[in-house]
Amino acid sequence: MWPTTKLQDLLSIEHPIIQAPMGGAVDFALVTAVAKSGGLGSLPCAAATPIVLNKILERAKDVVDLSININFFAHETTNNDAKRDASWLASLAPYYKEYDCQQPASLDPGSLTPFDEERCSIIEKLPPKVVSFHFGLPHDCLVERVKRTGAKVMSSATTVEEAVWLEKNGCDIIIAQGFEAGGHRGMFLTKDLSEQIGTFALVPQIVDAVSIPVIAAGGIGDGRGIAASLALGAVGVQIGSAYLFTREATIDEHYRRALSSENNANTVVTNVISGRPTRIARTRLTEDLGPISLSAAEFPRGFAAIDPLERRALTRGRTDFCAHYFGQATPLGHPTSAEDLTQELVVQTQTVLEELSS
Amino acid sequence: MWPTTKLQDLLSIEHPIIQAPMGGAVDFALVTAVAKSGGLGSLPCAAATPIVLNKILERAKDVVDLSININFFAHETTNNDAKRDASWLASLAPYYKEYDCQQPASLDPGSLTPFDEERCSIIEKLPPKVVSFHFGLPHDCLVERVKRTGAKVMSSATTVEEAVWLEKNGCDIIIAQGFEAGGHRGMFLTKDLSEQIGTFALVPQIVDAVSIPVIAAGGIGDGRGIAASLALGAVGVQIGSAYLFTREATIDEHYRRALSSENNANTVVTNVISGRPTRIARTRLTEDLGPISLSAAEFPRGFAAIDPLERRALTRGRTDFCAHYFGQATPLGHPTSAEDLTQELVVQTQTVLEELSS
Repeated sequence: MWPTTKLQDLLSIEHPIIQAPMGGAVDFALVTAVAKSGGLGSLPCAAATPIVLNKILERAKDVVDLSININFFAHETTNNDAKRDASWLASLAPYYKEYDCQQPASLDPGSLTPFDEERCSIIEKLPPKVVSFHFGLPHDCLVERVKRTGAKVMSSATTVEEAVWLEKNGCDIIIAQGFEAGGHRGMFLTKDLSEQIGTFALVPQIVDAVSIPVIAAGGIGDGRGIAASLALGAVGVQIGSAYLFTREATIDEHYRRALSSENNANTVVTNVISGRPTRIARTRLTEDLGPISLSAAEFPRGFAAIDPLERRALTRGRTDFCAHYFGQATPLGHPTSAEDLTQELVVQTQTVLEELSS
Repeated sequence: MWPTTKLQDLLSIEHPIIQAPMGGAVDFALVTAVAKSGGLGSLPCAAATPIVLNKILERAKDVVDLSININFFAHETTNNDAKRDASWLASLAPYYKEYDCQQPASLDPGSLTPFDEERCSIIEKLPPKVVSFHFGLPHDCLVERVKRTGAKVMSSATTVEEAVWLEKNGCDIIIAQGFEAGGHRGMFLTKDLSEQIGTFALVPQIVDAVSIPVIAAGGIGDGRGIAASLALGAVGVQIGSAYLFTREATIDEHYRRALSSENNANTVVTNVISGRPTRIARTRLTEDLGPISLSAAEFPRGFAAIDPLERRALTRGRTDFCAHYFGQATPLGHPTSAEDLTQELVVQTQTVLEELSS
């Protein structure tokens, strides 16, 4: 049924549907269900320590024969800026007080460090089918080592310039991440949000600019979006928000309620959660201090400022500081299972393609 | 060749392609060429006085038998806010000084008044095939009178809520204007730019929410975008930027150069030109005071502040204050004629639809 099988051939999958890696929302149950349904499941491992990563890959070998995508971050690390961190904590002080919450003395980047030598060695031992990166690519020699394992390398481009850079630096497949997408913008050659481009305009421009396969991401919520992505020249899609609705998604009741709420079209791109622009449902925090704050701590230290507040507020049933990541096509989603969703997407796409050809 | 003929049947056109009304860039030559090629040409008449409008329609009767779309604005007028205007003029004072330009004493809305009784009477005498509005719809009774002439009424929706409102208030066809679109955002139920949605996510949500036909607009630059729009459930497309490249477009050499420049992907949504958010190529003005300024004069009085500066700077060959309106798909365009472009779009779409069905 698929008009192109480029991605399917490249990754040995049945359907050109990639479930997006979504930190905190995806575990083995979801990626396994997607893999069994013929798509590509993606496991977010940006925050996994080497020990945890090793365990994850051991388990992935047993469960899906490593036939998944393992996702890492490749962000540039910034020097600790204690003054800036302190200033950001000062902005948040009233919330710490209100919630009677211990304010951290300083901000720690935690385990969200960029893909490195140590993680690369683990990938070399247990190479998954695909390794994807967000925020660019790691150093050339790490990319080369990952590719030598046979794993295909993917990364996100939010501009044509980023796509051209990714191709030049060894990427096998580009994910064209339109502005509609939920979660962190993959931008790495620009910090200017006003340059960010919608999926509709971005995909064909990237397709024209590179010779490697392009995946469309952002705003794709059903078979119509998949057919439209193929029309724009993409060889497949990456879908996030629709998979958050599945029973396998490891999100709490608040997140699940936000997904199905009447306000689920109401998202903003904000840097007050992590320090980098990310699309989430509006919260008290994005309204009060954002969506974009020039004084937000730099990524990923922003998380360390918000996490204690988020947890504390949740004990009072409040989601003031929760990052409910989802994109602009969320209203197209509905509660389901990962297998049913994948099958539904395939059938819907087939129907649209048939209608277009009649 | 078209998988749906809903729009063609409704408007008696051959191809579901609407050339966008673009103030200052479109005259009879362009709309006539589009009409002759089987699409729908749109003539921007928001700034036309009743006398001029009458002349335009008389001429349209001779040239295309009124088989065009006449576009008006339906913005809410705001009370003159002399204090705010003065404050905005004060922000611009350094530019007036630099360019040795006479600063206006106050800001006049000019002829950009909303569609009214007087214009409606002229439409009743010489009804075009289609009347489209931007920024909502005029009063119920005016919409009713326009419809009674047999003209179909279109308006732009930038959110699902706006689309539902437009259907409820008598609109025949909705233009789903994604965030990628060049020119003024048609937003009228919200002022919050962060709520604006990309074409990819917007079109299917509006299609699901209304029962009248939906046109996709924003980020559509070639046949791939047209096929993708049809996949998303639109019955046709409205295309602006690609038609700016045609030799019939009445734009100056600077505008034409900006369209084809290497920076043509670099647009911003700004309110410093008119007072309302509009997508244009970056300029000195958007960089210095924008893209969004909380002190910008209200629409349409912003024009009166910028127009003298624009003209004066142009005499020195500078485009610091020019509003080169175009959208995020501009890099897909190329110099051509309106007839060739329309034919090219049709052929490209056919090719994509054939590829999708193979």
